[in-house]
Amino acid sequence: MGSDANLSWASATQAAQMIRDGIVSAEQLVKACLDHIETREPDVQAWTFLDPDYALQQARAADELRLSGQPIGPLHGVPVGLKDIIDTADMPTENGSPIHAGRTPSRDATVVAMLRAAGAIVMGKTVTTEFATRHPGKTRNPHNPAHTPGGSSSGSAAAVAAGMVPLALGSQTTGSTIRPGAYCGVYAMKPTFGLIPRHGMFQLSRSFDHVGLFARSLDDIALLLEQLAGYDERDPDSRPRPRVPYREIAAAEPPLPPMFAFVKSPRWDQVEAETKDAFAELAEHLGAQMEEVELVSASDEALQWHETASGPEVALNLRREWETQRDGLSAALRARIARGLAVRGIDYLAALRRIPQLNASFTELFEQRYDAIVTPAAFGPAPAGLASTGDPACCALWTFTGMPALNVPLMQAGNGLPLGVQLVGPRHGDGRLLRTARWLVQHVSAVPATRRHGS
Amino acid sequence: MGSDANLSWASATQAAQMIRDGIVSAEQLVKACLDHIETREPDVQAWTFLDPDYALQQARAADELRLSGQPIGPLHGVPVGLKDIIDTADMPTENGSPIHAGRTPSRDATVVAMLRAAGAIVMGKTVTTEFATRHPGKTRNPHNPAHTPGGSSSGSAAAVAAGMVPLALGSQTTGSTIRPGAYCGVYAMKPTFGLIPRHGMFQLSRSFDHVGLFARSLDDIALLLEQLAGYDERDPDSRPRPRVPYREIAAAEPPLPPMFAFVKSPRWDQVEAETKDAFAELAEHLGAQMEEVELVSASDEALQWHETASGPEVALNLRREWETQRDGLSAALRARIARGLAVRGIDYLAALRRIPQLNASFTELFEQRYDAIVTPAAFGPAPAGLASTGDPACCALWTFTGMPALNVPLMQAGNGLPLGVQLVGPRHGDGRLLRTARWLVQHVSAVPATRRHGS
Repeated sequence: MGSDANLSWASATQAAQMIRDGIVSAEQLVKACLDHIETREPDVQAWTFLDPDYALQQARAADELRLSGQPIGPLHGVPVGLKDIIDTADMPTENGSPIHAGRTPSRDATVVAMLRAAGAIVMGKTVTTEFATRHPGKTRNPHNPAHTPGGSSSGSAAAVAAGMVPLALGSQTTGSTIRPGAYCGVYAMKPTFGLIPRHGMFQLSRSFDHVGLFARSLDDIALLLEQLAGYDERDPDSRPRPRVPYREIAAAEPPLPPMFAFVKSPRWDQVEAETKDAFAELAEHLGAQMEEVELVSASDEALQWHETASGPEVALNLRREWETQRDGLSAALRARIARGLAVRGIDYLAALRRIPQLNASFTELFEQRYDAIVTPAAFGPAPAGLASTGDPACCALWTFTGMPALNVPLMQAGNGLPLGVQLVGPRHGDGRLLRTARWLVQHVSAVPATRRHGS
Repeated sequence: MGSDANLSWASATQAAQMIRDGIVSAEQLVKACLDHIETREPDVQAWTFLDPDYALQQARAADELRLSGQPIGPLHGVPVGLKDIIDTADMPTENGSPIHAGRTPSRDATVVAMLRAAGAIVMGKTVTTEFATRHPGKTRNPHNPAHTPGGSSSGSAAAVAAGMVPLALGSQTTGSTIRPGAYCGVYAMKPTFGLIPRHGMFQLSRSFDHVGLFARSLDDIALLLEQLAGYDERDPDSRPRPRVPYREIAAAEPPLPPMFAFVKSPRWDQVEAETKDAFAELAEHLGAQMEEVELVSASDEALQWHETASGPEVALNLRREWETQRDGLSAALRARIARGLAVRGIDYLAALRRIPQLNASFTELFEQRYDAIVTPAAFGPAPAGLASTGDPACCALWTFTGMPALNVPLMQAGNGLPLGVQLVGPRHGDGRLLRTARWLVQHVSAVPATRRHGS
C-alpha cells in the first residue's frame, strides 16, 4: 500500500488503521481518493456534489485532531460518499430532482451526524435517481460505461466499485441498494428495517425505506453498520436496542458450517440463463450445505403487496411536487404517483398486515435449519444502456419483509460484468448474516475463476 | 360498611384493604355485589354474561389463597366487569354482535391476565354496543332507565354507576369511555394511547383503540391504571416504559394550585345551554386558575381526520363480517364501513400525520402554563331514549391525539342526570392528570349543591 494510487483502493478498515498508526494521514488518503476520482469521474459520473478543497479541509482538521492526542473514532479520516437524498448541513441535497435543485438543508441527517462522530470525512454527494425511484441519473457502470450501474443508489455503488471511496451510503425502498451493488460488483447491505435511523433523509416510503451500505469488503460493511445501528426517536420505526458488536460477530467462525436455503426469485422465469447456470454451479459447490426451499405461496404476491403498500406513501411524500410542480417530475414517477393515489386505504392496510405474517413464516425457516437464504440479487448482470436502472424484482420481497439482505460480489458473467449473490437473514440477524457471508466467500474462493469476481 | 347491601358500594381500594385485613372475605364482597346486581339488573341491563356460581367460586379460591398465607395482589378479591370485546378464556366474548354469538376465545386478553395476576375476580362481561361502535345494546342509564347510558362501553359504565361492581374495563376509539362515564356519573379514564396493551381485545381501529377504566373514585382509577399500564410486544403500539407509581402520584398534593385551560369543544355551538352555564359557574369558581384557551384551528378539523384515519381500519377489521355476513351488521355500521372503504390510502396517511403535529401544539400548552385542559365530556347529560348512545364529538379530538382524558362526575343537570367535566393532559401525563383531578374535586366540593353530583 505504498503508492498513493493504490491508497484509494484501501479498505476502510485498513485505511482507518493506517491513519490511527500514523502510517498515512487523512489528508493523504483523501488526496489519493480525489486524484482517483479526477481520473475516473469523466467515465463514471458518480458524483453530484464534490468540493475537493472542502474534503481536504476536513481531512486536515482530522489530522490535527489526531495529532492533538484527543481520542479518535473508528472511521477517523476515512472518506464516505453520501447518496444525495441524505441531508448534509454543509452541502446541497437535491434528491435527484430538478425541483429540489439548490436545496441546502440546515441540518445533518442522523446517519451523517453518526459518521462525523466516528471521524469520517464526508467526501461529497453521490448521484441518485429521481427521488430514489427509477428515473436514472448520469452515472455509468464502472466496469463498462455502456451499462447501467443500477439504481437508485447509482453513484454510491459506482463510486465504491471504481475505488473512489471505500464506503458510501445509499438507501433501498425496493431494490435500490442490493441491485446497484450487484451490478457494480461491491458488497452492499440493506440491514434490518428500522435498525439504522432515517431521520434527515428524503422519505419515499416510511414502511420500506432502509439505509443502504456499500463497501469493498465484509469487514468494512460490519465496521460501517456498527457506527450506524442505533436509536433515534425522530424515526418512528427506530427502537432502542442493545449495541451489537457487528465486527466481532462478522469476524467469528460459525460454530458449524452454515446451511443455505436456495430460494428462487418469485420471478424465476425472468432470471437469465447465465445467472441460473451460475447458481447451479454454486449449488454443486456447496453440496449438502445448500438446499432448495420452496417459498410459501404468499411470497409470489409480495411484489404486488409491496406496490400496494408503498404506493400511497410515495404519493403522500411527493404530494407537494405533484400538486405544484408536476412538470418537474419524470413520466415514470408521475405514473407511479398516480397509481399510488388510486390505492384504497383498506388495501394499503391489508398489504401492510402481510409483513408480520411473512416474517413469521421465514423466522420458522431460519430457526429450523438455515443460516441464510441464497437467491439472485438481480435477473442477470447490469443491462446495457442507461435508460433503465434494471429490475428490482429479486429484492422486493426482502424489502417488504424488512429482512437484512446482502449482495456478495461472488461471480462474474461472460461479458466480464459482476453477478451478485444475495444473502438474506431473519430480522435482526444482521451479524450472523455477515458471519455466514464470510464463510461463503472463503469457501467459494475455490470456484473456477470464470465465475469469480473481485478478490 | 357493616351491612352487605352497602358493601357493594365500597370502593375497590376500600374493599381490597378490608379483604387484606380479613374484615370481609372476597366471597362476602362478591355475594354482596351479586345480590345488588340481582336487584338492579332488571332495570339497568348492564350484563351480557354473568355466572354467579363461577364468580363465587373465584372468590372462594381467592379467600383460600389468602388464608394459605401466600402473597396476594393489590386487587385481591375485588370484582371487575369486562366489556364484552375483551377476550376471556373462561367466558364467551361476543363483541356485541349476533355474528359473534357464542364466540368463546381460548385465551385471556393481556389486561385480563394482568387483572387476574393482581387478584381480581372477573365478575362477568358487560354490554357493549355492536363491535364497540354506535348501534346500542340493551343497557339503560342507572339514573333514569328512559335515558341512554352512552356507549360503546355501556354496561361497564352502568354497572359501576349502579354499584354492581367497583371497577370495570371498557374501550374508547372515539368517545366510548368518557361519554358513558359522563352520562352515568362515574370516573372514567382513557389513559395515554399505547399505555395499556390491547392484545386480545376486539380491534376496531389500531390507531385509536384505547383501553378505558371505570370506577367511583379517583383512587380506584389510579389503582386500576397501576395494574394495567405495561408492555406487551403483541400490541404494536405498546412500548417498554419504566413503571409509574400512579397511586402515589395521584394522592400527592400539587406543588402549586393547578392552572386549567378551558377549551370549548370544537362543536361548542352544539353544547347545550345547561352545560354552558355549568362551565361558566365552574369558571367563576376557579377564578384566575382557569383561563379560556383558543384551540389551534387544526383542532376543528380533527373530527374529520379521526373519521378519515379510523375509516379504513374499521373497514379492514370488519372485512370478513362485511363480506360474508353483511346482513348481521346494523345499518349504521354498514354505512360506516362503506365510508371507510371509500377512503384513499393517501388521505388515510395524511390524516395520521396530523397526530404528532397536533400533539406538538398541545405539548407546548402544557409546558408553558397549564396542568390540564377542562372541557365538556358531552354536549349535555344523557339524552332521552335508547336508540342512540349520544354524540362523541367532545371526545374525538383527545382520542385522535392519544392524550389521556378523564371524566370527573362533578356536576348535575336540572333533571338529576350527571353532567361530566372532562380533564385532558399531555401524553404520558396520566399521573399528573389524576393529581390535578383530585385537587379539582376537593376544591369544587364547595360549589352549590344543585350543580354537584355524587359524593
